[in-house]
Parts: sequence; structure tokens; C-alpha cells
Amino acid sequence: MAEPGRLQQLERRVRELEEELVRERGGRPAPRARIESMSPEVTDSNPYSRLMALKRMGIVKDYEKIRTFTVAVVGVGGVGSVTAEMLTRCGIGKLLLFDYDKVELANMNRLFFQPHQAGLSKVQAAEHTLRNINPDVQFEVHNYNITTLDNFEHFMDRISNGALEEGKPVDLVLSCVDNFEARMAINTACNELGQIWMESGVSENAVSGHIQLIIPGESACFACAPPLVVAANIDEKTLKREGVCAASLPTTMGVVAGILVQNVLKYLLNFGTVSYYLGYNAMQDFFPTMSMKPNPQCSDQNCRKQQENYKKKEAARPKQEEIEQEEEIVHEDNDWGIELVSEISEDELKAASGPVPELPEGITVAYTIPNKEENLVTEETVAESEESLEELMAKMRNL
Amino acid sequence: MAEPGRLQQLERRVRELEEELVRERGGRPAPRARIESMSPEVTDSNPYSRLMALKRMGIVKDYEKIRTFTVAVVGVGGVGSVTAEMLTRCGIGKLLLFDYDKVELANMNRLFFQPHQAGLSKVQAAEHTLRNINPDVQFEVHNYNITTLDNFEHFMDRISNGALEEGKPVDLVLSCVDNFEARMAINTACNELGQIWMESGVSENAVSGHIQLIIPGESACFACAPPLVVAANIDEKTLKREGVCAASLPTTMGVVAGILVQNVLKYLLNFGTVSYYLGYNAMQDFFPTMSMKPNPQCSDQNCRKQQENYKKKEAARPKQEEIEQEEEIVHEDNDWGIELVSEISEDELKAASGPVPELPEGITVAYTIPNKEENLVTEETVAESEESLEELMAKMRNL
Repeated sequence: MAEPGRLQQLERRVRELEEELVRERGGRPAPRARIESMSPEVTDSNPYSRLMALKRMGIVKDYEKIRTFTVAVVGVGGVGSVTAEMLTRCGIGKLLLFDYDKVELANMNRLFFQPHQAGLSKVQAAEHTLRNINPDVQFEVHNYNITTLDNFEHFMDRISNGALEEGKPVDLVLSCVDNFEARMAINTACNELGQIWMESGVSENAVSGHIQLIIPGESACFACAPPLVVAANIDEKTLKREGVCAASLPTTMGVVAGILVQNVLKYLLNFGTVSYYLGYNAMQDFFPTMSMKPNPQCSDQNCRKQQENYKKKEAARPKQEEIEQEEEIVHEDNDWGIELVSEISEDELKAASGPVPELPEGITVAYTIPNKEENLVTEETVAESEESLEELMAKMRNL
Repeated sequence: MAEPGRLQQLERRVRELEEELVRERGGRPAPRARIESMSPEVTDSNPYSRLMALKRMGIVKDYEKIRTFTVAVVGVGGVGSVTAEMLTRCGIGKLLLFDYDKVELANMNRLFFQPHQAGLSKVQAAEHTLRNINPDVQFEVHNYNITTLDNFEHFMDRISNGALEEGKPVDLVLSCVDNFEARMAINTACNELGQIWMESGVSENAVSGHIQLIIPGESACFACAPPLVVAANIDEKTLKREGVCAASLPTTMGVVAGILVQNVLKYLLNFGTVSYYLGYNAMQDFFPTMSMKPNPQCSDQNCRKQQENYKKKEAARPKQEEIEQEEEIVHEDNDWGIELVSEISEDELKAASGPVPELPEGITVAYTIPNKEENLVTEETVAESEESLEELMAKMRNL
């Protein structure tokens, strides 16, 4: 005997399909027309009324300025796709999307892509959906892997010249990739260009993530020291080959995309405090914040060059600011200049950041690393991630 | 009971229409077929592989259990729609959606709804999208306002009986509404039924939000004391009439939906620590946590009754646990038994929670409240929201 709800469900499905057919045969309303300038007018048909209200609420001085900015999103997966959607709905001027993957049904446990898009390239599917959501945004999509030599050069060229006004650099690069190589490629490009970028990541056990702001020369780059919460550094292809895969959740991805784009908005539109590093521990609902100074011995020569430039610029500033800077608390024996700037004490951070996610049996890190004895970071600050930090540092040295 | 032939007839019609739709779309594949049981198999076509991996990663013991749960989502707006989408993609058993609003272009600055859905009822549009994303989930939608007398009774009936197995109560009710009246209606219903629920909210200036777990009798209900970060208590219709509107951002809404559903998963699937109260201050990237005991003088008699039941249950528990409970730090002169359980100190919370959002000129709170001298809450814990707390308490007494 069928359950009583089944009949009603089928009847509803028939109605739905019939309606869908009508729409498909020409009854479907066209997506909205382009809007010349953002209006604060409160009508049901104004997609910008709730954003322009940020001005009236005293949060943002000049919200319309959002239309002048260009953001590059590298990686259009669980975090990148939602990041691109949020920026699109906020009315960003232009988006550059980079990814070389195809949509698969295996992606359906995260937001954004839908089953009927399976098989399409992620950038193509994303552009279609986003253009439909907001035709005022300009899109430029690149369906390639940025880590190969030719593509890397093209990538460099586009972030240097791909702003709304061709020839000008983008305002911000967002790293939403899922592997170490792609992060290092973005890092290399941004260090060379002096391009400000934000990094994001989600752990392979799906219950932690982070975002990080990198200002070349001013804050630690990805080669100076890897982030405290190390993101899933497992190559997805390796995992698939071995018949295992990393876990993921739409919740963690949504939170990471949300805090990422929130910080993008704060940075571009100049409100609130932009976080240098913000972690998310989903098990305990804990969100550590911190900042890291660049490493004077960074293996990336362009990072070291940017540090010199920054020092010169700082030296030219009035004395009072310098004194305040020297007063900043940096822990002794802290080779990496890692310092906490949050309201949270070190002990609290240590206690709440929890153990480093253990890799289950059958899963190994995609790259093997020679053993390295030197303890690069003081135990107080990042004791929990000590091992993987050492491993990654050694790996980076070998690159 | 309908005759079995009707069922087959409908199933055939659904197949027919689906095929017709595929032809109409020029070969575009139909949404995926139903999946009988969740498999951990790692293939591109398995939408559950990344979720089942949570077991292998040691995070969740029995992920498949997600299919046995029913969750009611009240309010399918900026937070509720993303909440429903996340639960759908996680493979929840059944969703009950309640809303009476229509999709408008003015909603396009938040995730989920798309311009072509403008004019449709939110629950209808949401069901269509969600069913397409995951046909394994059962949906029951109600296009009405739960606060009117008849609808409230029906709402009570559905959360008492609308689980996967008809006649059983839902496992959790999620409040994603944008006004005080609807929250109080959910509170009243859940106190009467002893139904566990979670509340969520976003401020009218769009830069803060919160979630809260309410276990009737055990933690403070919405009539015991309003949440620390008071959500937008402005009636949307009033605002529209006055030509003003509250601000909103897809980022804040996405973060609040993300932390809400993360806590739903932790609660249902028994992993991590479920937060009683988690706030989000987007300006400073600060996330305060706390818990509140119920108020013995709560105006809701069913809350007081649930408190008695809880006390009896607690009294029947072994002595050791009682002793530990008595040792909990509750501040003196704290009439509401508000206590902090987070790693964050009171001073830090006070310092970082910032000023109460000021209403800009031309906007007033939707309901006016008689002045009340009594200071109901100690200054140490919720000093910043003291005024609006008093106002709300007075308002609740008058209801």
C-alpha cells in the first residue's frame, strides 16, 4: 500500500510539470532588463533597494561605488560559486571567473549548481545562472587550469588588465581553490604584481575553514607561512583515483563564502574592520582571528621585494605611527612574527581550535615531505597545527 | 483512500510530462532520478559521496539517519530559503515550508530566488527549485500566515503530525521569520507542544545576526527574554508603506543560514557542540556565544509548565550531576538567570558586541511600548541592549 502523501505528491508534480511545459513553450518571463543606475527607491521591482538602504542605515557611505569594482574569483566550486553569486547579487561591476572543472552530480551537496547543469563547465554554468540573476554585472570567464605555464601567463595578464576599464588591474583576487598548487600560483602572481588578494579554504573533514587577507609586503603571503587552519591540501584527482574523497558540507562552504564576501564588501566599500585572518571551527562554533607579518626569509623573492617597498613607505610616514607599531606585542622566539590581534587570548585559542583533523585510514596527503626537525613556530600560538606547518614549510622550500 | 489505479495513472502522467519536457528543452537531461539509499561510493554521479565521507572522516557516526528526520522551516526569505536549500542538499527526509509572501525583484539581493520567479509564492517557487535539486526529499508547503487564528491551529497540527510518518511530530522547527509576531506564534506553539526549535534573526541594518536553540523548560524561551542581538523587529509592510525599508545582505543571511543549519546537523546527527546562542557581528567579525536559563516568571504558562516538567526530570537524575549543576556560575542579582557559557569573558563580550544599532531618521519600531522603569537584566551581561530589552519585555507582558 502506498503512503497517503504519495498521491498528493504526484498530483502536485503533474501540475508542476504542466506549468513548466507552458513556461518552456514561450510563456516564461524574460530575465529583468538592465538597470542604468542604482536607485534607493523602495518598490517591489527594485533589486537594489535593500542594498542602497545600507546608506540610510549609516553602514556604507557610497554603496553605488560597488559598480566600479572588478573582482577575480579563482575556483568556482563550493566556496567560489557562492562567492560569485553573493557578489553578483550585491551588484559588483565585473567578475572574472577561473575554473577548469565540470559540474557533476557529486557537487550537489553544496549550494549553487543544479542537477541539470551536470556535464557543463563550471564557469559556463555559473555565468549562465549569474547573468540571469543580475544582468547588470559584467562577466569574463576562463575555462582553464591557472597552474600550467601558458595559462598562468594569461591569468597574470587578465588580473593585470581585466578591470572594467580594460588595461587596469582588478581590485581584488579571491582564491577559492581546493589545492596547494593553485594557491601557490595565485600567491606567486599576486606577489609579482603587488596585487591584494584574499585566500579561503575548507578542511577535508568539512568542519572547519578560514579566510585570509594578503597584502603583499604588509601581511604574510602564502609562502611566508601557511594558514593556521590548513585547508584541504588533498588533490581531488588523487583522491578519486584511490576511491576515496574528502567530505564537504553546504553549511561550512556557505559560512566561509559569507565571511569572505562580507570582508570583500568591507574592504571595497570601506566600512567595519577587515579581518586579516578569520577561522571557523564548526564543531565548537569558534571563530579565531589573528594576523601574520610577512617572513623576511620568504622563499618568494617578489614577497621580499614587496616587504622592502612596504618598509620604505612606512619609513616615510610620521614618527608617532612608528612608535605605536613597535609597541605591538610579538611573542619572543616567534620566527614567523605570528601575532594575535583578536579579543581572544592565546590559551583560549589553543583550547578551542581543537586537534588537527586526522586523516582517516586509506587517505594520505597528496605530496610527501622530507622530515624536518626545526620547530618553526612557537608552541603557544600554533601548537596544534605544528606538524602540518613544518611539513608545508619544508615542501615550500623544495619547490 | 484512493484506488491503486489512480496512483499508477499519475505516475505514468509524470513520466510522460517529464519526457515531453526533455524534448521541449532540446535534449537537456531531466533532473536526476530518485536514489533508494545513500551510498558512500565515490563516483561523479553520486550526490551523497561527499556527505557520506563524513563517516569515514570520523565526524558523523550514521549520516544516513538524516533521511529519517523532518524539519519545519517557518519563513522562506533571505535566511529560510538558504536554510531549506542546505537541508535539501544534505538529504533531509522531509521539509515543511511555511510562508505567505510572494517573490519580488526586491528580494534579488539575497541568495536563492531568481528573477523569473517574481510573482510566484515563495513556498511554491522554493518547492519547485528544491525538488529539482534533490528529488529524494519530501516537501509539504503551506502558503499562509501562521499568526492568524485558523492558520495557527493548522500550523500546530502540522508540526505535531507532519513528520515522515504521518501522526508523528517534526524533529525540529526553525524560525526564519522577520517579525516579532511570527516569532511569538512559533514560541507559543512550541511551548505548548514541548517542541524543540531554533530561532534565527538578522538586524535591520544587515550587519548582525544570531541563532538560538530553545528547548522548552530547559533554556529561555522567546517570552522569557528576547535574544541579545534583537532581530529586525520592523514590520516589512509598515516600512514599505512609509517608503523606507530595512537593509539586507546576502553575506549576513548566508552566514546566519550556514550556522543555523550547521547546528541543526549537529543536533540531529549528534556531533560537535550545539550552540544555545551564537551571534554574528559582521562589522568586527565577532561571534559571541552564551546560554540563557528560562525565566520562572515567564508570561507563557506553557513555558512555566515545561520548566516544572524539566525540574522533575532533573530531580530524578543521579546526585553527582545535580552537584555539578549547582556549581554553575550564575551572576547575583541576575533575575533572568542569564549566564555565559562561552570561552569569552563578559567584559570581552560587552566590549565587542558594540552599540545597539540605531534606527535612522524616519524609521520607528512597528509597535509602541509603554515606559517601564524596572531594570530587568543585570548590566554586566546585556547592558548594551538594555533599552530594547525593557521595551520588548513590556510589550510581551501586554500581549
